[in-house]
Amino acid sequence: MKYTPLIDQLIESLRCQSGIGPKSAQRIAFELLERNRHGARQLADALHKAMDGVGHCEQCRNFSETPICSICSSPKRDTTSLCIVENPANVISIEQTSSFFGRYFVLMGNLSPLDGIGPEEIGLDQLKIMIEQSEISEIILATGTTIEGEATAHYISQVFSSLNLKITRIAHGVPLGGELDLVDGGTLTHALASRQEI
Amino acid sequence: MKYTPLIDQLIESLRCQSGIGPKSAQRIAFELLERNRHGARQLADALHKAMDGVGHCEQCRNFSETPICSICSSPKRDTTSLCIVENPANVISIEQTSSFFGRYFVLMGNLSPLDGIGPEEIGLDQLKIMIEQSEISEIILATGTTIEGEATAHYISQVFSSLNLKITRIAHGVPLGGELDLVDGGTLTHALASRQEI
Repeated sequence: MKYTPLIDQLIESLRCQSGIGPKSAQRIAFELLERNRHGARQLADALHKAMDGVGHCEQCRNFSETPICSICSSPKRDTTSLCIVENPANVISIEQTSSFFGRYFVLMGNLSPLDGIGPEEIGLDQLKIMIEQSEISEIILATGTTIEGEATAHYISQVFSSLNLKITRIAHGVPLGGELDLVDGGTLTHALASRQEI
Repeated sequence: MKYTPLIDQLIESLRCQSGIGPKSAQRIAFELLERNRHGARQLADALHKAMDGVGHCEQCRNFSETPICSICSSPKRDTTSLCIVENPANVISIEQTSSFFGRYFVLMGNLSPLDGIGPEEIGLDQLKIMIEQSEISEIILATGTTIEGEATAHYISQVFSSLNLKITRIAHGVPLGGELDLVDGGTLTHALASRQEI
């Protein structure tokens, strides 16, 4: 005897969430059944509603429940500055800093030819049309500092170098509050090379 | 701007799973929306089906999709031996050892007067009727070795001491493959006191 078929199916389904292994899935399934059936039903409804109701913004490709997302349709945002990020979580992170007032373009990934992710998959055609049709004067490349993120930033900067655009990359260096001896060599090299006069 | 309302609701609902904090919930929500909408819909269906279809066995209180669970209704199980455990996960653990062939009684918790969990909540009335109406000759107390588990085991052994029953407790001691210097003092004291002749 293992689990009953429905519990088995529940445990298997819970594992679609990354970071949930077999032991965690069993614990969560039992806890929901024992103590929180109401919460489990709410979760099921929220999953269905989100999967049906959340699409992508036609302009910036971020998650949106409307054809154009709230940032792209806001008249308060600076339309001359465009920040290019990898994914919707990056938009949240930057928004939380309250230090950027332009618009975003979400690649929904990075260039990765081996995985079949080329310029089309990350929406560069769409980005080109967007830049040509609007008054954007600066694009800020805020992809990650992984190899893929750097390669993607480099590729985008090459593709758009012929346009009359300021193309910038977010600064790399020692994080605030960081001890120098805890910072890796690559970051420190970058921080030295990019030193600025004070 | 934070999330859209549906994503907000999804992230909030995902947190009904223990061990999932706000950061993990955000990561899982975005991953499901980006890459696994099919899996998310399957999870929603599995949650609904399990919450509707899984109840408790009328005899042993374990999770079951039928009024009497597969262990209680199996003619192959030894009906003279009853193992008392805290929760359904314990049944799975003991079944996986393939070393117990009797039946179970699942308390679905431990005695905890401060939380309002008394003998009735852990089904001791039901257990008494079960013992009186069947041919059980031994009950094995396999509750955990926490203070609550020990207290519950002690209480049950007192309640049923007047009946003509063999009452046993699973052995406490040094785990197999354990180094003595990594074992805590309480366990070692117990292991010494319960030493057996070889």
